[in-house]
Amino acid sequence: MATQGQVITCKAAVAWEPKKPLVIEDVQVAPPQAGEVRIKILYTALCHTDAYTWGGKDPEGLFPCILGHEAAGIVESVGEGVTEVQPGDHVIPCYQAECRECKFCKSGKTNLCGKVRAATGVGVMMSDRQSRFSINGKPIYHFMGTSTFSQYTVVHDVSVAKIDPKAPLEKVCLLGCGVPTGLGAVWNTAKVEAGSIVAIFGLGTVGLAVAEGAKAAGASRIIGVDIDSKKFDIAKNFGVTEFVNPKDHEKPIQQVLVDLTDGGVDYSFECIGNVSVMRAALECCHKGWGTSVIVGVAASGEEISTRPFQLVTGRVWKGTAFGGFKSRSQVPWLVEKYLKKEIKVDEYITHNLTLGEINKAFDLMHERGCLRCVLSTEA
Amino acid sequence: MATQGQVITCKAAVAWEPKKPLVIEDVQVAPPQAGEVRIKILYTALCHTDAYTWGGKDPEGLFPCILGHEAAGIVESVGEGVTEVQPGDHVIPCYQAECRECKFCKSGKTNLCGKVRAATGVGVMMSDRQSRFSINGKPIYHFMGTSTFSQYTVVHDVSVAKIDPKAPLEKVCLLGCGVPTGLGAVWNTAKVEAGSIVAIFGLGTVGLAVAEGAKAAGASRIIGVDIDSKKFDIAKNFGVTEFVNPKDHEKPIQQVLVDLTDGGVDYSFECIGNVSVMRAALECCHKGWGTSVIVGVAASGEEISTRPFQLVTGRVWKGTAFGGFKSRSQVPWLVEKYLKKEIKVDEYITHNLTLGEINKAFDLMHERGCLRCVLSTEA
Ligand SMILES: NC(=O)c1ccc[n+]([C@@H]2O[C@H](COP(=O)([O-])OP(=O)(O)OC[C@H]3O[C@@H](n4cnc5c(N)ncnc54)[C@H](O)[C@@H]3O)[C@@H](O)[C@H]2O)c1
Ligand SMILES: NC(=O)c1ccc[n+]([C@@H]2O[C@H](COP(=O)([O-])OP(=O)(O)OC[C@H]3O[C@@H](n4cnc5c(N)ncnc54)[C@H](O)[C@@H]3O)[C@@H](O)[C@H]2O)c1
Ligand SMILES: [Zn+2]
Ligand SMILES: [Zn+2]
Ligand SMILES: [Zn+2]
Ligand SMILES: [Zn+2]
Repeated sequence: MATQGQVITCKAAVAWEPKKPLVIEDVQVAPPQAGEVRIKILYTALCHTDAYTWGGKDPEGLFPCILGHEAAGIVESVGEGVTEVQPGDHVIPCYQAECRECKFCKSGKTNLCGKVRAATGVGVMMSDRQSRFSINGKPIYHFMGTSTFSQYTVVHDVSVAKIDPKAPLEKVCLLGCGVPTGLGAVWNTAKVEAGSIVAIFGLGTVGLAVAEGAKAAGASRIIGVDIDSKKFDIAKNFGVTEFVNPKDHEKPIQQVLVDLTDGGVDYSFECIGNVSVMRAALECCHKGWGTSVIVGVAASGEEISTRPFQLVTGRVWKGTAFGGFKSRSQVPWLVEKYLKKEIKVDEYITHNLTLGEINKAFDLMHERGCLRCVLSTEA
Repeated sequence: MATQGQVITCKAAVAWEPKKPLVIEDVQVAPPQAGEVRIKILYTALCHTDAYTWGGKDPEGLFPCILGHEAAGIVESVGEGVTEVQPGDHVIPCYQAECRECKFCKSGKTNLCGKVRAATGVGVMMSDRQSRFSINGKPIYHFMGTSTFSQYTVVHDVSVAKIDPKAPLEKVCLLGCGVPTGLGAVWNTAKVEAGSIVAIFGLGTVGLAVAEGAKAAGASRIIGVDIDSKKFDIAKNFGVTEFVNPKDHEKPIQQVLVDLTDGGVDYSFECIGNVSVMRAALECCHKGWGTSVIVGVAASGEEISTRPFQLVTGRVWKGTAFGGFKSRSQVPWLVEKYLKKEIKVDEYITHNLTLGEINKAFDLMHERGCLRCVLSTEA
């Protein structure tokens, strides 16, 4: 490759400050060092975690930075010692790494690899604690170890899933975050069994993916809860069988669900990021066995609470990150499932724009009817 | 039996009002009706739930009542349709019923039978919603469906475990509550695996039974946490390998444990009933998989809280009632384990008194060095 070993100057959307519109800049992307991979990003979607950090709500957010973590692309070059991918491979960057050798990876109990967290948590690369992005010598921070709002990015090799080159990158970019999070919450974290009654709070991309996962698991009733009644129409396509709008009821929503299900649901999922809804999601669970999974990300500093009696009488409170999927091992498997038409992806994409229109894409996130907006990074 | 079908007048400790000393009274105990069993109680221990209700802390506590729920005795007579026990059988009354036919029993997921709860929760028997206890015609409420602070009691047939008559009743009465609660929290609720690191908050009877259960499960480290440093000596005999007194540390206790265990424990158990400790018990768990089980009963109205991030990063919050044991099926099995010397019971008994000395026994509960006090009911 002509660019291998060279600094690449390309377009990237830079977040200079919280809440200020992103600016498309010419950014210098340094070559990958040992254990690193430089990826040409072709498509990237937006997720709420991008908006959360951009909105200044993440106390650990660092600026200026290049956001983005739900994307797909092609390996441009690899650093020393990288064996699992090579230039030309189709890949999905994974904000949740998988090294297969740390305490977490070896536990078999979690997908929360610890290998590169110390670096990705502070916007740099492991080897030299520096950023690979700069503008005229001024470093720009990485974000979530992915920074996909750029035509080129550099990631750790433990953060790259190699996928089937037959997969359309403009679709499977969604398998970098929201869709696997919802599916995995059901399959890996809750382990919903056939016949179960499921409640889903929040019917955005994540909640709809929960519905899809629950349907695949054979749930007998899938109750969608959203304050936007228009969500029901689309939600039906993802498996939701009943719809409840908390605004239509005077009783607390947990009571509405308990009444509707003769004692409570078997599994509930909070896919909003609202701590009061998290409590309701726990409390609508059936005594003795109901399990509630927190998927939504709450504003920093907020706390969940309940009476301990809820747990002593058999309810279980859990959470999930990236749906419990081991990223490098399982994202390629999800891509295969998509190719075999066993999981939906296209149906979550409601908008397509270009990287240059990214601020419009952020605005769209607050609009009804928007699930995922995919940006092409072509100039 | 001469007494069969007759009202029996016997001694019982009556709680006339919250916080007022119990009074030994001559109480009339009506014969068992259909589906009921009258038991001659020989030995009863005291548990914190008795003290909790007596202390007026249970908003659903009803007075006057006969407290007590950790006991053993012999069936005196049975009502119509009772087939599983007969006069002369040695039994342990079970505040957690097991009917084998309700939604809960059939689920296979919980021990929280729902069959007689509506009655036991309000101090009466199911069939006629009346009490079987009275004093000169004035009814005295039942408690937890057991009321063992009496020479005779009447319970539902689904609340009686028939045990091996070879078992010493003055010992196995403890298998009616505290000891199974601790063992089962480990075996049934947490399902601790060999090699696990366990933390136990509170080293009373329940916490020590957790230690015993964890040792049997092959835990590699069993860290006992108590504000009473004297507990360590006795706790060693139950399997505790390390001791931490929160008072010896300036750091929050969850941080002390995380530091001590390179990231947190695999399983923690709250055996006190203190909501701040419940939070600490969750937060000392290892990211990715640590599971915390609430065993202690908090004061009514109190709430637990934490940051949802604790769960999103893989910790699990649970609770347990009677250790998840199915009472009628499994209490007899625990008795067998005791007879085979596979579980301790004698070691938890620090005091022996008579029913007449019950107020002294309540005082003893607040004294250091007291685990369980067993009362004989002989006149
Ligand atoms: N745990 C993880 O790994 C992970 C990964 C991706 C996303 N997330 C989080 O999941 C959450 C959902 O993401 P999304 O992309 O689906 O979001 P979204 O905004 O598209 O969907 C949220 C839905 O919740 C509804 N809603 C809002 N308030 C509500 C209320 N009080 N009651 C009922 N419904 C309400 C909205 O109408 C909307 O339909 C976000 O918090 C996101 O940060 C978590
Ligand atoms: N869930 C159930 O089914 C069930 C059944 C039985 C008992 N319980 C509950 O379990 C709890 C324990 O019962 P027990 O009989 O072992 O009680 P106990 O009073 O004998 O033991 C409690 C221990 O906790 C220690 N302690 C108190 N505050 C502490 C703190 N802040 N930090 C550390 N240690 C502290 C005390 O020194 C004592 O050693 C009670 O709340 C009881 O109601 C629950
Ligand atoms: Zn995301
Ligand atoms: Zn790892
Ligand atoms: Zn008890
Ligand atoms: Zn039952």
